[in-house]
Amino acid sequence: DFLLALDEVHPSFGVSETELKQCVTNGIFKFGNHVERILSDGQLFIGQVRNSKRTPLVSVLLHGPSGSGKTALAATIAMASDFPFIKLISPESMVGFTEQAKMNHINKIFNDAHRSEFSVIVIDSIERILDWVAIGPRFSNTVLQTLLVLMKKAPQKNHRLLILATTSQRHVLQQMDMADVFDASIYVPNITDLDSVDLLLQELKTFTDSERRRAIDTLRASGIEARGISIGIKKLLMITEMASQDVDKVDKFVYTLTDEGSGGAR
Amino acid sequence: DFLLALDEVHPSFGVSETELKQCVTNGIFKFGNHVERILSDGQLFIGQVRNSKRTPLVSVLLHGPSGSGKTALAATIAMASDFPFIKLISPESMVGFTEQAKMNHINKIFNDAHRSEFSVIVIDSIERILDWVAIGPRFSNTVLQTLLVLMKKAPQKNHRLLILATTSQRHVLQQMDMADVFDASIYVPNITDLDSVDLLLQELKTFTDSERRRAIDTLRASGIEARGISIGIKKLLMITEMASQDVDKVDKFVYTLTDEGSGGAR
Amino acid sequence: DFLLALDEVHPSFGVSETELKQCVTNGIFKFGNHVERILSDGQLFIGQVRNSKRTPLVSVLLHGPSGSGKTALAATIAMASDFPFIKLISPESMVGFTEQAKMNHINKIFNDAHRSEFSVIVIDSIERILDWVAIGPRFSNTVLQTLLVLMKKAPQKNHRLLILATTSQRHVLQQMDMADVFDASIYVPNITDLDSVDLLLQELKTFTDSERRRAIDTLRASGIEARGISIGIKKLLMITEMASQDVDKVDKFVYTLTDEGSGGAR
Amino acid sequence: DFLLALDEVHPSFGVSETELKQCVTNGIFKFGNHVERILSDGQLFIGQVRNSKRTPLVSVLLHGPSGSGKTALAATIAMASDFPFIKLISPESMVGFTEQAKMNHINKIFNDAHRSEFSVIVIDSIERILDWVAIGPRFSNTVLQTLLVLMKKAPQKNHRLLILATTSQRHVLQQMDMADVFDASIYVPNITDLDSVDLLLQELKTFTDSERRRAIDTLRASGIEARGISIGIKKLLMITEMASQDVDKVDKFVYTLTDEGSGGAR
Amino acid sequence: DFLLALDEVHPSFGVSETELKQCVTNGIFKFGNHVERILSDGQLFIGQVRNSKRTPLVSVLLHGPSGSGKTALAATIAMASDFPFIKLISPESMVGFTEQAKMNHINKIFNDAHRSEFSVIVIDSIERILDWVAIGPRFSNTVLQTLLVLMKKAPQKNHRLLILATTSQRHVLQQMDMADVFDASIYVPNITDLDSVDLLLQELKTFTDSERRRAIDTLRASGIEARGISIGIKKLLMITEMASQDVDKVDKFVYTLTDEGSGGAR
Amino acid sequence: DFLLALDEVHPSFGVSETELKQCVTNGIFKFGNHVERILSDGQLFIGQVRNSKRTPLVSVLLHGPSGSGKTALAATIAMASDFPFIKLISPESMVGFTEQAKMNHINKIFNDAHRSEFSVIVIDSIERILDWVAIGPRFSNTVLQTLLVLMKKAPQKNHRLLILATTSQRHVLQQMDMADVFDASIYVPNITDLDSVDLLLQELKTFTDSERRRAIDTLRASGIEARGISIGIKKLLMITEMASQDVDKVDKFVYTLTDEGSGGAR
Ligand SMILES: Nc1ncnc2c1ncn2[C@@H]1O[C@H](COP(=O)(O)OP(=O)(O)OP(=O)(O)O)[C@@H](O)[C@H]1O
Ligand SMILES: Nc1ncnc2c1ncn2[C@@H]1O[C@H](COP(=O)(O)OP(=O)(O)OP(=O)(O)O)[C@@H](O)[C@H]1O
Ligand SMILES: Nc1ncnc2c1ncn2[C@@H]1O[C@H](COP(=O)(O)OP(=O)(O)OP(=O)(O)O)[C@@H](O)[C@H]1O
Ligand SMILES: Nc1ncnc2c1ncn2[C@@H]1O[C@H](COP(=O)(O)OP(=O)(O)OP(=O)(O)O)[C@@H](O)[C@H]1O
Ligand SMILES: Nc1ncnc2c1ncn2[C@@H]1O[C@H](COP(=O)(O)OP(=O)(O)OP(=O)(O)O)[C@@H](O)[C@H]1O
Ligand SMILES: Nc1ncnc2c1ncn2[C@@H]1O[C@H](COP(=O)(O)OP(=O)(O)OP(=O)(O)O)[C@@H](O)[C@H]1O
Ligand SMILES: [Mg+2]
Ligand SMILES: [Mg+2]
Ligand SMILES: [Mg+2]
Ligand SMILES: [Mg+2]
Ligand SMILES: [Mg+2]
Ligand SMILES: [Mg+2]
Repeated sequence: DFLLALDEVHPSFGVSETELKQCVTNGIFKFGNHVERILSDGQLFIGQVRNSKRTPLVSVLLHGPSGSGKTALAATIAMASDFPFIKLISPESMVGFTEQAKMNHINKIFNDAHRSEFSVIVIDSIERILDWVAIGPRFSNTVLQTLLVLMKKAPQKNHRLLILATTSQRHVLQQMDMADVFDASIYVPNITDLDSVDLLLQELKTFTDSERRRAIDTLRASGIEARGISIGIKKLLMITEMASQDVDKVDKFVYTLTDEGSGGAR
Repeated sequence: DFLLALDEVHPSFGVSETELKQCVTNGIFKFGNHVERILSDGQLFIGQVRNSKRTPLVSVLLHGPSGSGKTALAATIAMASDFPFIKLISPESMVGFTEQAKMNHINKIFNDAHRSEFSVIVIDSIERILDWVAIGPRFSNTVLQTLLVLMKKAPQKNHRLLILATTSQRHVLQQMDMADVFDASIYVPNITDLDSVDLLLQELKTFTDSERRRAIDTLRASGIEARGISIGIKKLLMITEMASQDVDKVDKFVYTLTDEGSGGAR
Repeated sequence: DFLLALDEVHPSFGVSETELKQCVTNGIFKFGNHVERILSDGQLFIGQVRNSKRTPLVSVLLHGPSGSGKTALAATIAMASDFPFIKLISPESMVGFTEQAKMNHINKIFNDAHRSEFSVIVIDSIERILDWVAIGPRFSNTVLQTLLVLMKKAPQKNHRLLILATTSQRHVLQQMDMADVFDASIYVPNITDLDSVDLLLQELKTFTDSERRRAIDTLRASGIEARGISIGIKKLLMITEMASQDVDKVDKFVYTLTDEGSGGAR
Repeated sequence: DFLLALDEVHPSFGVSETELKQCVTNGIFKFGNHVERILSDGQLFIGQVRNSKRTPLVSVLLHGPSGSGKTALAATIAMASDFPFIKLISPESMVGFTEQAKMNHINKIFNDAHRSEFSVIVIDSIERILDWVAIGPRFSNTVLQTLLVLMKKAPQKNHRLLILATTSQRHVLQQMDMADVFDASIYVPNITDLDSVDLLLQELKTFTDSERRRAIDTLRASGIEARGISIGIKKLLMITEMASQDVDKVDKFVYTLTDEGSGGAR
Repeated sequence: DFLLALDEVHPSFGVSETELKQCVTNGIFKFGNHVERILSDGQLFIGQVRNSKRTPLVSVLLHGPSGSGKTALAATIAMASDFPFIKLISPESMVGFTEQAKMNHINKIFNDAHRSEFSVIVIDSIERILDWVAIGPRFSNTVLQTLLVLMKKAPQKNHRLLILATTSQRHVLQQMDMADVFDASIYVPNITDLDSVDLLLQELKTFTDSERRRAIDTLRASGIEARGISIGIKKLLMITEMASQDVDKVDKFVYTLTDEGSGGAR
Repeated sequence: DFLLALDEVHPSFGVSETELKQCVTNGIFKFGNHVERILSDGQLFIGQVRNSKRTPLVSVLLHGPSGSGKTALAATIAMASDFPFIKLISPESMVGFTEQAKMNHINKIFNDAHRSEFSVIVIDSIERILDWVAIGPRFSNTVLQTLLVLMKKAPQKNHRLLILATTSQRHVLQQMDMADVFDASIYVPNITDLDSVDLLLQELKTFTDSERRRAIDTLRASGIEARGISIGIKKLLMITEMASQDVDKVDKFVYTLTDEGSGGAR
């Protein structure tokens, strides 16, 4: 089992284990088919990097709506590779850096990766690493160009490198000619049906079984599915925890989910 | 009672009490239902941060028109948490700072918060902290990106952080993908009916009862409510004080309120 | 009498008297009702700042067309307050300053004001202080943000501050969200009728009575009032002086006023 | 006679005579009425500055098409004032200067002028001093703001200052709110009729009388006046000199003038 | 044979052999006519540079879609020249450089080339060297202007220089007036028919003959050719290697190629 | 004979002979009438500068399509002047310069020219000297303004200066108000008929007479003239040399000329 394997991963030189584990704070719940499909696709890319002589460099983009679980999944796939070099490039690790400092930080991690026989680099939230903002728009072209070049630069002879990147702004990367640079891409969807919500609530155990059933029944009766539901796993966890503080958990949960899940103004 | 509890808050290491109290110079008058609802919602978020293991970081945006009381309410909620670390990040505390200095100042406060077991950070007037101006438009992307990352960065293991932010430009934050980063948001409305004005005048005691009644009656007779009234608590306080300097308080009050309250050109 | 009171103002520590007097080089002529109304409104705001506990900070914007007398009136109101701290922030005093130096200069004056029990700050020609130019448009956001924050920053406990600002570009301030920051605003109009011109000419004594009457009669006969006349006091003074150099004063005056007063191309 | 007076001007401390004389390399030919009218208007402004107590600062803008003689006329008026301080601010004197250096240079000349009892400052080719270019458009806002403020700054008490500026881009100055800052403006036109061309050729003596007559007759016969002629004095001088190198002077002159004078592509 | 000749090339002073060989990691497969035509055109240009006295400087642009083999072909032609000076200017060799450093690096390589009797410079991926991004758009004008000038600068007397450049953004170079600077250009196409795919699979030997035939047959049956196929050699190699990791190679290959080859969203 | 005279020019202090000669690498072929007309116009301007007292400064712009021979002709005219100071300002001589360094370099050459009694300055490829690129558009306003001012600055008393500039982007100079600064302009056309091509081939001697005739006949038969031919002398020389490398010279020449000469995509 893939998830079991994950638990057996041991700390090793060149692996930023703590930071990667922090990306999966609430674990990986299997509330839908796509979760296992994404993890097994990840396994396939690890296999290609391990075995193919012709493609020493493979890059994959995990993209999807905000909070759909991209970072947690990318970190999980990376850790499962068991490669001696697994590093995370994240906006959090570069707060307060100048463009130049970011460039050097990123460059250093790639250089280190090139020197290891088998490496994985996770580039989390590329749009944030690029200081992207839609007004303007503005972003760091210095950092963008560094990534564009490094993502095509082959590692040292006979060495292998897998790049796993995440973004919630794939269309922006396309406008930057960055989407083209990836060899493959994986879509990480939102939760779009009440069965998945039900499954998740079962795993979370925040509600008693009767509370959970009442919540799901009320939601189903409200016709929310017909109107279209779309909510990220991250937001769903937040709503559940908020609701559990209220005297009337179920009502608060149903009310807030209806508000958020249909994209309504908070 | 929530407001009573506030009075009992005692100074403690890590709490910027003076600055927070300065945000509530004229106290909190209960001139409408929304005031108590907002304060109790605030209580709920404090509870979640105190109790939930799954959501160590919760962020809430108080938004509404200019002068509606956002800062006073955010400061009041923060002080009521009784957490050992309560800090204010405000434009006033960063006058004359370079972008870099602002970034460092903000970063330091977040780092300190992460080190405390329970923390609240109030980020007042985000648009001003970002040096936002609609012409251009221009703003500090350096500061924006710092906030975008810090607002998603989890505190140290087992530590908890509540972020309360205010803005009168929520649509701007939405264009910056910043509204998405908040876990919840609270709307702080203007005063939109004469009953609330009446209640406030009673509490203020600037007018005698007969003056107050004459003012409200004149306003009601003028049909201002039908045309639509919308005025912030802050401006209403200012108008009352201005009027009280005039030989004919009531007339001046009625005249100015009619002018301002209907959005007329001053 | 208000204007008499002005003469009695004595120099005192913290008052930039010379510069303020220089703003009123040609005195204040009472050629229309609005002049006295503006001065008495000014008195009211001084009273509010002196007396109200709830509003220690009051800001007023004097706006109107170029040369209508805004600076002279703001300086006159400020000097009449007799407060121990009265300072002028003007573009002329910051010629050759960098943005940073401007920011520091402005910040220093506000800090000094906060330390005085009763203060007035006159901010003259805000658009010029901001280096505003419509092409681009361009302006100093550094200085703008400094002003936006300082204009809302409360003085030290129990201290009071009145801010009087002038601009001929109020619509620009509105686009910058700066107009909102003012608690009140006063419109300073151009001269728009021949009676005011007549009154002014009487006070100026540049023309003899018969010359003046001939000038006014010619203008009236020309139908200029029907077509609409609008001219600032500053320009009218300039035209009168120019005309007085000509061999035929009255003709030159009538000709130039007709040209300028109807907004014609010079 | 005004032009005679000019010859009598003597060098004096504070007068940049050499540079001003260089602006009038080919003298002032009286080929049309407007020339004398402009010079006598200039005299009037000098009189106003000398005599009026109310207007110690007068600024005049000479504007018109490229090469129409603006600089030569401004320099001529300035030199005729016989004031102890007459300085030229020109693009040529600031080649290679940074924005900051330009600002300091201009500021210094104004400060010196303020210290002299009677002063004239000629600001030549404002658009070039501002580094104006229509593509973008781009210009030095630093220099623009410096000029905008200095042109409104009163000289020392009882001192007087006349500012004479030239531009071929008055509409640009209008967009920059700079045209408003001038107290008066004078239009310097192109040559638009063959009589003026004829008068000029008589004065120049480059052609014999019969050559000149043949040239004018040919031009008149060609119907160029009906199609509209418009040429600057500067270009007309250049064409005459070019033509005089050719074996067939008259033909070359007629041909080139026809080409240029009707705004044709060279 | 041209490709055989390539193998005989020996390292020499002034030749960056390692980097050039790295551009052809998977060799040159002859899967279509255009491959040989491009290589022989390359030979022609080498001949011209070697022999012509009138054209000591010849520049050629290889352009085509992303991954069509431009870099591999340019490097192959360059190495086949056997000139004493063959250098590669590539984005990978300038990661982390400032604009100034890039400019100096490029300038140095050109200066060295000018000093050698016969030289080839390969400028790989010009758009990346220029830090081009379509959003804005932005690019380094400093580097662009350096290239524009250097590409027209003749080498030292009697010396010869061939410039081979590659780009996947020829239309961008056209907008920059850079396309005009090249003396000739060569189009490197994508693979657009199944016969070429079949030929390539034969050479690659990743599939057995029966697997290959099944793959091609399935693709042909799917009508992909009719809908239009267009895929770069680089991507085709990547897909083949990915598919070979799957339990069902052929299915994965057919599925992915169908998805990619028709420009579908990954 | 003008071209003979050129050969007799001798090196002298202040003449950058080597660089100017390098601009005419392939000599001046007289393949059309315009060549002699341009050279004799050049003679006329040299005469004017030498003789006229009224116009000590004359500036001429040579403009036309890319590769039409502008630089070669400007250099030829300059060298024929036999003036003691003849200098070239070219992009090639300023590769790697900062804007400031360019400005100083240009300024120095003009200052030196002003000190010489008779001078010619050739400013080659103004758009490149300005770092012009149409995307944006971008260019160095610092360098532009320096040139705009220097091109109007009179040399030292009694000294003379001829400025010869070239550009293939005259419309850009017009947008920059730079075209206006020139006193005259000369159009350097492309080759637009087969007779000129034939004449050139005769002079070049790359083809035998029969080859040449076959080439011209084939081209004429193809109807290329009717469709419109337009090719620069520079490109025509390049095509002839390329074709001469091919086994079938004539075919290659005809094919490539047809492709290029009609503006087809290479
Ligand atoms: N099946 C799952 N897939 C992904 N995350 C899961 C899953 N089950 C539970 N989680 C939890 O949900 C959270 C997903 O958050 P994550 O930060 O990965 O989302 P994201 O898409 O990267 O968000 P953002 O768009 O803000 O970057 C994590 O706390 C993770 O432990
Ligand atoms: N119920 C209330 N809610 C909020 N403020 C109140 C209330 N009653 C009285 N006040 C007083 O009203 C003022 C509200 O001003 P505050 O600065 O909080 O408004 P704001 O919305 O933050 O304004 P701005 O948009 O300018 O930032 C404070 O002085 C506060 O003491
Ligand atoms: N009633 C009046 N109000 C204002 N100014 C007056 C009045 N009577 C005379 N003046 C004189 O008119 C002039 C007004 O000029 P002032 O600089 O105040 O105008 P302004 O509106 O500030 O001009 P600008 O738009 O250029 O800043 C002063 O010299 C002042 O002494
Ligand atoms: N009546 C005249 N008015 C102005 N200039 C004259 C007159 N007669 C002769 N000239 C000569 O014509 C030339 C006018 O050039 P000047 O530089 O003044 O023009 P300009 O309008 O300033 O040009 P530009 O638009 O390029 O700045 C000078 O050489 C001057 O001596
Ligand atoms: N006939 C061929 N032509 C070009 N490349 C080939 C050929 N046969 C095999 N290859 C291999 O295909 C790959 C082509 O990749 P290359 O980097 O040259 O493409 P590119 O067009 O430069 O890509 P990009 O647009 O990303 O720069 C190389 O690994 C090369 O060895
Ligand atoms: N009649 C001619 N006129 C100009 N150049 C000629 C002529 N005959 C031959 N040539 C040769 O043609 C070439 C013209 O190139 P030149 O660099 O002058 O063109 P250009 O128009 O300046 O090109 P670009 O637009 O690239 O600057 C030179 O090598 C020159 O020796
Ligand atoms: Mg994420
Ligand atoms: Mg607030
Ligand atoms: Mg003013
Ligand atoms: Mg001029
Ligand atoms: Mg490539
Ligand atoms: Mg050229």
